[in-house]
Order: sequence, then C-alpha cells, then structure tokens
Amino acid sequence: MMSSRLPPQLPLSTLPVRPAGQPVILGIVGDSGAGKTTLAAGIAAIFGPERVTLLCTDDYHRYSRMERAERGLSPFDPQANYMDILEQHLQQLRAGRAILKPVYDHSDGTLRAPVYVEPKDYILVEGLLTYSTRAMRDCFDVKVYLEPEEELRTAWKLRRDIAKRGYTEDEARRELDRRLRDSLTHIRPQRTFADLVLSFRRRDGSVSPVRTNNLNARHILRPTLPHPDLTPIVEGAKNGIRLELARDIDGKPVDVLEIEGDVEDRRAKAMEDLLWDLIPEAGHLRANLGQYLDEDQHTRMSHPLALSQLLITYHLIKAAMGHYAI
Amino acid sequence: MMSSRLPPQLPLSTLPVRPAGQPVILGIVGDSGAGKTTLAAGIAAIFGPERVTLLCTDDYHRYSRMERAERGLSPFDPQANYMDILEQHLQQLRAGRAILKPVYDHSDGTLRAPVYVEPKDYILVEGLLTYSTRAMRDCFDVKVYLEPEEELRTAWKLRRDIAKRGYTEDEARRELDRRLRDSLTHIRPQRTFADLVLSFRRRDGSVSPVRTNNLNARHILRPTLPHPDLTPIVEGAKNGIRLELARDIDGKPVDVLEIEGDVEDRRAKAMEDLLWDLIPEAGHLRANLGQYLDEDQHTRMSHPLALSQLLITYHLIKAAMGHYAI
Repeated sequence: MMSSRLPPQLPLSTLPVRPAGQPVILGIVGDSGAGKTTLAAGIAAIFGPERVTLLCTDDYHRYSRMERAERGLSPFDPQANYMDILEQHLQQLRAGRAILKPVYDHSDGTLRAPVYVEPKDYILVEGLLTYSTRAMRDCFDVKVYLEPEEELRTAWKLRRDIAKRGYTEDEARRELDRRLRDSLTHIRPQRTFADLVLSFRRRDGSVSPVRTNNLNARHILRPTLPHPDLTPIVEGAKNGIRLELARDIDGKPVDVLEIEGDVEDRRAKAMEDLLWDLIPEAGHLRANLGQYLDEDQHTRMSHPLALSQLLITYHLIKAAMGHYAI
Repeated sequence: MMSSRLPPQLPLSTLPVRPAGQPVILGIVGDSGAGKTTLAAGIAAIFGPERVTLLCTDDYHRYSRMERAERGLSPFDPQANYMDILEQHLQQLRAGRAILKPVYDHSDGTLRAPVYVEPKDYILVEGLLTYSTRAMRDCFDVKVYLEPEEELRTAWKLRRDIAKRGYTEDEARRELDRRLRDSLTHIRPQRTFADLVLSFRRRDGSVSPVRTNNLNARHILRPTLPHPDLTPIVEGAKNGIRLELARDIDGKPVDVLEIEGDVEDRRAKAMEDLLWDLIPEAGHLRANLGQYLDEDQHTRMSHPLALSQLLITYHLIKAAMGHYAI
C-alpha cells in the first residue's frame, strides 16, 4: 500500500541534465586503516585513470609528523588540518576548476611542494575529516563511510603503518591508542552524514584478522540516496545476500544489505547482472570489478567487494547522468 | 567651463560602504628588478604589518629554476606559472578567505611546501603577470605599474640577483638577455591596465645608475581612478613638482605628475600636507613615509618616493572607505 504513494517515474526526456564540466564527486570517510585507499583504488580501476581524479585529504595536514608530536596533536584533530582550504578546494573541484593541492608525504611525515590537480569526470575523495562541515558535505554526490570490524581495522592499520609509513610496531601501536580519543571525537561522528555505511567483517570472529579473504560486507543504506531495488535478488534467499529493514545504531530506520564472503558465484552474478542492467550506459566498465591485493600482494577477487564497488559505481553513474541533480 | 560638468560631490552620509571583511587589494606589476618589492615594503610600513598581507606572485612559478632551464622556459612565460591558481587565489582573498599559497624559494630556485595566508585589511600583490587576465584585474582596487628607467632597472636587478638569489654576475647578465623577449611579450603589455604608471629616473642620465639617491619620480595618472586634485600645489610652480596634460606612449590622454629628486623640502611638505588633509582618517599613519634602504643598506628618505607612496596610500584609503565601490 505504501508504494502507491511513490511519485511516478519521470519520463527520460525530462530527466535533469548535469551541468557541463561539473564532475561527480564521491566521498570515502573512515577511521585510519579502514580501507579507504583500497576502496578508492578499486572504484578508480572500474572507470579507468583517464576519467578519475583521486584525492587523499591527508595532504591537508597542517603540520609534519614531527611538528604534530611537538604540539601533542593527532592528525585526526581539525586543528592539525587546513580545514578551510580543503573546503575551498572541494568547492573549486565541484565547479570544475583545478586546484594546487598541498602534499603530505606519508613515507616520512613531511610537507612537500604542492601539485596541480585537475578535476576529471569522477573525483574520489578519501580522508579522515571530509564530512566535517556542511559546505564540504554539499560538494559530494555520494557519501560513503567505511566502518570495518575493529579487529580488522587495527590489523590493517598496523600492517600499513609499518610497511609503508616507516613506523616500528611499537610506534604504530602507540599511535593507535593515542588516536582513539580523537577518532571518537572527530572521525566517527561523521558516520551520520553518509548515504552508505560499508562494513567489512569476518564471517567467524575467531579467525585471525590478518587472513582476511572472503570477508562479509554489510551495507547500511540510508534513504538519502535512491538505492536500486534489490528485491528481485534477495526475495526468498536464505543466505549469501540478504536485505533487511533494521534500526541503525542511532535508532533511524535503514536497509541493511548483507553480502556474505562465501556467497555462491551464481547468486553474486545475479546481483551483478541486475545492477549493470540498471546502468546500461556503463556496461563497458565491467572488466575490473572486485579485485584487490591480499596480504601477499596477490591480486584476488572478492564477491562482496565487487558488489560493494558496483553499488557505489551505480550511484556515481546515476549522478553523472544528472538523476540526482534535482 | 569643463569643470561645471562635473557631478556634484556626494554628501558623506550617502557614500557607499565597502562590504565587511572585504580587503583592499593593491597590484604592483613590473619587469624583473623594477622595484616592486621595495615599493610594496614601503607601503606596508605605512599601514603596519598587522594590517597588511604581502603577496609575491613569483610563488606561483610552476617549475623550479632547474626545471625551467631544462624546458627552456623563462619565469615570465605564463606557461611557467600557475596562472589559473593565482587567479583563483586572488578571488579568494578578495572575498576575505584564506589561501594555501605555494612557495618558490628565490635563494635556490626550488619549490617548497605551501603556507597559509590570511587576508588582512590591505593586500599588496606584487608580481610579473598579475594583470594578465580580466578576472585577475577585477580583483584589484588600485593597479600600479612600475617602469623605471631601463639602466636603473638593469643595475637594480643585477645587484639583487647576485646578492640575494645566488647568481654569478655572468649568469645574472645572461638571464637579463634571455628574458627580454618574454618581457616584451608578457610583462610590458600589462602596463595598459594600470591606473598609475610610476617611473623612477635619474635627474641626469649620465650619473652612474648604481648611485640612485634623489631620483625623479614620474607618475602617469590614468583616468581609471579619481586622482586627487593637485592644482593647489602645482599652480605657478617652475620646478620641483609639475603636473602636465600629455599623451601617453599609446596616444591616450593622461596627466603626468613629475616630482624631482631635488624638490625643495617646503614644496614636498606642501604636497604631503595636501594629500594627508584629503584622508584625515589616516593621519596617524604619517610616521614611516618615504624611507628606503640605499645600496649600503642605510635607511634614507626620498621626497619623490614618499610622495609616490602617499599617492598610492591615498587611493587605498579611499578604496577602504568604499569610495571606489560604485
């Protein structure tokens, strides 16, 4: 009975057209080590480098690692970041204009000469504080928040900080503790602004968090975006892919889409087909979906990751077509 | 008879008010070594550092000195500069917003980490290419072009490049030659957009250009700004300060205000008094007018320099009061 109240679909010819030269902007926010870069790289691979600008807002750190230590600031603190400049740059990119982006070198924690960044058709912005202000949030077409199971995030972060950022294991663990308070104060409250909260988790919590193949993916779908109708896929399903009405941690009603790591190929393929059919103009992008590098740097394929990427891609394509411009 | 056609003066109460938070922006453009930094520093000293933001657009060089050499580009070439970013930053400052300014280190010709620059009440922007686009020019309240006698400029530039920028005399002379073509193509055409063209010159062309005390100052006053009425000072004057109707090098009618280096103290003081009386709200700024460092780094006082600074200051004060906002 509720569905009879929905407005009729607009005929195609009256669909709004996105302003020329205005890129589509995706936000990926989450705690340190939540997998932001991996998700952004996966989506970038779908569209191809010639159509994607990647922006990591860690580059807007105001201080070097050493300066932060002297001041007792964590990189999660807005005071340790050029928040107003980030907002300004997002607005410039949104308007299709290039920016001169600052550079924070994660390998040694120093600030470097800035680089010129031009907006391509799709801009993927990943960072810690990117939904902090209304003006920033208004720049995004699609807002994702990444919230992996905490044990996974900790394991991913330690591995990354030691392998790529020159921390010893002791230092990396101390950083984790030091940042927890700032994370609770500054990072996690941004979850509430996301259209989609994506949470990777182990199927069995007792499995070592370092062996992270075949993770489940839980998607909290907020009604702030018109999510695709997945009922043809999930109807009558007992496992593998489930869609449930639920209350979010803040009590608000949401859809929860759960994709299990061991979902049958046949069912995963059915969901993929359904989503690609909804965006026929993007069918040619189907090649590189769902790949990631595992802990041994081998390219692997994951159904939940592929479907998460595809769900986000679906929204980016719809935004590019101007469907979300009204 | 012509003066009877002038519109009546607006009563003070109807004067337009400048938008709150919008700084007054002065442009100083001219060839390399023309004295831009010296003029900017002199005007900054009048207002005081707490009210002035200094911006040198050399910081928008796209390449290091070494990269320019490899590409065969001079710093005068717009292609060797982030022109769109400069335009964007001028617009942000104009709107009262901070920028993250790139940094070009003149001492070794390298690019560095950017710095955060907040707009204060007065922004003094000196540079090579700052009037290149309409959008840039629209950001300025007052536009000055510096055009010293060529022998003076050459001597000033060589002295500066050797003392402060690590060039040998041979290198500095080669740079001068190499840049001449780009200067004719890119720098000097901007002269036409200035409200005021300021030209320091020797009283006697045969004097060594290194001994540059008591220079004459010639001001070409374009009708793009309402210049103060100087007739009470120059009427009946035989020397020292002259105001003449003339044709500019492009054939356009202009006023030429000539202030000689050996103008009598009494006459210079009379012009100073007249200008300060026209901006009574700025009388407290009178202390630091007209000082400069000579070639031996001694602080000296020059009447022509003082009066040039004061004429520019007059326009900045009028702009700050909103007189030029209509």
